[in-house]
Amino acid sequence: MQDLMKKIVSLCKRRGFVYQSSEIYGGLKSAYDFGPLGVELKRNIMNAWWRDMVHRREDVVGIDASIIMHPRVWEASGHLAGFADPLVDCLVCKERFRADKAPTADEGAAVTLTFADKGVAKRALEIVEKQFGVVLERDGKDLKGAVAGDRGYLCPNCGSPWLSAERQFNLMFRSSLGATDAMDGVAEAIEQGALEGLAGRDLRAKLDELMKPSAVYLRPETAQAMFVQYDNVLQSMSMKVPFGIAQMGKSFRNEITVEHFIFRSVEFEQMEMEFFCEPGTDDAWMDYWRDERMKWWKKFANEPDKFRLRPHEPDELAHYAKGCYDVEYLYPWGWGELEGIANRTDYDLGKHAKYSGQKLDYFDPTERKRYVPYVIEPAAGATRGLLVYLIDAYHEEEVDGETRAVLRLHPQLAPIKVAVLPLTKKDGLPELARKVVDAFFRRGINAKYDEQHSIGKRYRRHDEIGTPWCLTIDPQSLEDGTITIRDRDTMEQRRIAIDGAVREVEDLLHQEA
Amino acid sequence: MQDLMKKIVSLCKRRGFVYQSSEIYGGLKSAYDFGPLGVELKRNIMNAWWRDMVHRREDVVGIDASIIMHPRVWEASGHLAGFADPLVDCLVCKERFRADKAPTADEGAAVTLTFADKGVAKRALEIVEKQFGVVLERDGKDLKGAVAGDRGYLCPNCGSPWLSAERQFNLMFRSSLGATDAMDGVAEAIEQGALEGLAGRDLRAKLDELMKPSAVYLRPETAQAMFVQYDNVLQSMSMKVPFGIAQMGKSFRNEITVEHFIFRSVEFEQMEMEFFCEPGTDDAWMDYWRDERMKWWKKFANEPDKFRLRPHEPDELAHYAKGCYDVEYLYPWGWGELEGIANRTDYDLGKHAKYSGQKLDYFDPTERKRYVPYVIEPAAGATRGLLVYLIDAYHEEEVDGETRAVLRLHPQLAPIKVAVLPLTKKDGLPELARKVVDAFFRRGINAKYDEQHSIGKRYRRHDEIGTPWCLTIDPQSLEDGTITIRDRDTMEQRRIAIDGAVREVEDLLHQEA
Repeated sequence: MQDLMKKIVSLCKRRGFVYQSSEIYGGLKSAYDFGPLGVELKRNIMNAWWRDMVHRREDVVGIDASIIMHPRVWEASGHLAGFADPLVDCLVCKERFRADKAPTADEGAAVTLTFADKGVAKRALEIVEKQFGVVLERDGKDLKGAVAGDRGYLCPNCGSPWLSAERQFNLMFRSSLGATDAMDGVAEAIEQGALEGLAGRDLRAKLDELMKPSAVYLRPETAQAMFVQYDNVLQSMSMKVPFGIAQMGKSFRNEITVEHFIFRSVEFEQMEMEFFCEPGTDDAWMDYWRDERMKWWKKFANEPDKFRLRPHEPDELAHYAKGCYDVEYLYPWGWGELEGIANRTDYDLGKHAKYSGQKLDYFDPTERKRYVPYVIEPAAGATRGLLVYLIDAYHEEEVDGETRAVLRLHPQLAPIKVAVLPLTKKDGLPELARKVVDAFFRRGINAKYDEQHSIGKRYRRHDEIGTPWCLTIDPQSLEDGTITIRDRDTMEQRRIAIDGAVREVEDLLHQEA
Repeated sequence: MQDLMKKIVSLCKRRGFVYQSSEIYGGLKSAYDFGPLGVELKRNIMNAWWRDMVHRREDVVGIDASIIMHPRVWEASGHLAGFADPLVDCLVCKERFRADKAPTADEGAAVTLTFADKGVAKRALEIVEKQFGVVLERDGKDLKGAVAGDRGYLCPNCGSPWLSAERQFNLMFRSSLGATDAMDGVAEAIEQGALEGLAGRDLRAKLDELMKPSAVYLRPETAQAMFVQYDNVLQSMSMKVPFGIAQMGKSFRNEITVEHFIFRSVEFEQMEMEFFCEPGTDDAWMDYWRDERMKWWKKFANEPDKFRLRPHEPDELAHYAKGCYDVEYLYPWGWGELEGIANRTDYDLGKHAKYSGQKLDYFDPTERKRYVPYVIEPAAGATRGLLVYLIDAYHEEEVDGETRAVLRLHPQLAPIKVAVLPLTKKDGLPELARKVVDAFFRRGINAKYDEQHSIGKRYRRHDEIGTPWCLTIDPQSLEDGTITIRDRDTMEQRRIAIDGAVREVEDLLHQEA
């Protein structure tokens, strides 16, 4: 199954879906760039979400808020205090890791430390003896005779049980806004000797305090803006509860553990919606959105059975959530999250009302009552959605003794909708083909003119990037005004009139989903 | 003319185009959120750009790169060293300001310092006497008897000539990536006493050095990614020079001077394209893109005469640029930039090749020669484009003794394309209206059902937000299957068949631009 991921990562780079960020500089840890086809696929997924969640609904409107928000937003939301991972340093090999993702051993169990080579193991032996007064036995790259402590975990790099205290590492990227560089205050304090004698936690706390006046954060989720702008949207759009506010865009998390290509990266895109409803109706709306969202993911999929809903266990729920379902997908490495649908109750509006001093409630004009709405939040990963549909679409089959790789992307998601191919480069075929392409452009359909290499090669090339239809212009086209349309999945061809080609493709595109 | 800006800012908030970011928390300096109508307008502008610059062209492809790139990118591009404003502190009132934007006075000229009130002026009098040994004469809120120095500028707040040295303030937002918090190194150095005895510039330099290992920056422009991924795009898409790489998205600049609503803000969106061509053909391509881009802006405008091209003077040109044109718009406060079209020569590819050690050139297979392409860059402001088209569209006129405010937005840019209005809420009119709305949704056209208030009020409401067509369902519709279509600009109405309504609007939408 990991073989499938290798093929997809390779296809992504080779055909212009996803590149490593800043690759010529050795890459940036867990950041990715979307190439010419990837950006189209991502746009198509996000535009489909926007169409279905915003345009086609009377009760949902969109916003697009700034990524840098007022820092009080993150105090109110709890992200400044609580959005942190427990980080630990290995005192032997200096690896920094997440305690909650580390390998575990029972207290008192014998553990073996393993290093890259004998030399490193030798140096580790000395460190352990000198610093912890324990003599281990070296066997090549291994050190034996260590005993697991009561912490329940070991260094994931070398297996050592000698670890620093856990410290909370906030996942939000911090920056500094305004003419006052945050480091000005630090420099001033140092010059004035105000930090002398401070160490450890006290020093860090003092440094944080000095940075605070200009500190801003990159949003770790798009969601909070919908609560912060709830009243502006309510007023300016004359909304009536129940209604929703949707947003798509970039979020940032300084993840220590990144994994599985674009599955978990430090910069990613989300598609989130906050649906405000009357308390008491929230359970019904939760069920509604859970089912709607599940249907949505499945309707673009070849294998809808690889999507499932998983209710959170009570001990898994965030403290403010009344209930939560994950839409999970069966990735090559197992089931994993794609979207979460949570009942956030009135927690967020209540918090922001308290921290801002503004009323964030709702007056129901027909029932003549006032309340703070409950919120159902379907929060989906757009970057993850792209990965899911690539995995879902990738297919290999034997055709005429050769392996055909085909991306069976839903036509609405395919980067290029139609390839327009003159059979040869002469006899007026290219000219006619370009006219056909232009007709598609005029209707806003992404078409691609392609005349390089044999027609068979061109079909394969477009199969591999998921182009649903190839239109071929051949000598007969000049005679009777017809062209062939070839289906990517069945490879079947039939002749249609040139004049009807745009309408034909438009109808095929709009017929589903 | 500033009156017009007030009306637009007010309309933006009242009707859900633009809100201040984090408004309930007192707002965040110069950051804005796009409301339900603003996000649609912005999407329409950016989608039109993408359609015309990417989809409709065989020679341009798109990418979408990460906002956080490898820090070496900004060393190579020159942004780390040179992308800075000269900042100065007033030693009297403590205002921090940009030297190059400050008011000026001739050396030796008599200058008057002015403060908020007498009390502040009194305290300033003491500061000047104590710190600079100069006795000024107080007259209410003014201090007289000061003399301008040789620096050529004064504090923009109080008029003082007593100023700190200029220092370079980099406009890039800095953050820290990875498990090593940048402040860890600083804390360690303080604990070890490594900063003792350092002050001023030396201390700042040492602090910057300690922060550097984990420092990352928010991109101040989208442009560099196209150079960094030039070779990946070239290879994966089999491009042939001349070709372009386009990107749209957020950029961030820690601007000290922000102005004119969303005209200059710290977080904004760009639409940029790098067009790679053979040296020697660059002048012709420069002319081509200059004219194309000018045409593009004008085609959506009511008043194309308010757009002009301004060639940069030789002393205005960036050191790497061979030539540059600004597309300027006549804003209510005067002519200002909207887009720049620059001939960047082979500067950027050359720099990134040097800093990365990778070859970033091109082998021309027909001419059998190798060269580093020259680059023409049309770099447009998307956020600014939104402001320009709002200003261009805003129109007031007298109708039946009342003032009608109408946003004459190009139909392709209008947030809502058609309002579907049942004349009354009974007799089956709402049901029929909803069927009409659904038909539009199925074709991906953003329609809005609206039944609140009188039909006249609804027309005005949609005039004010720029909806080009109102479709009214009345009792006759039930009898003969026709509805009225009302034109926003002429206010003329005519009856059309319900069955043909979608096609009618589709044709109107696609006919221009």
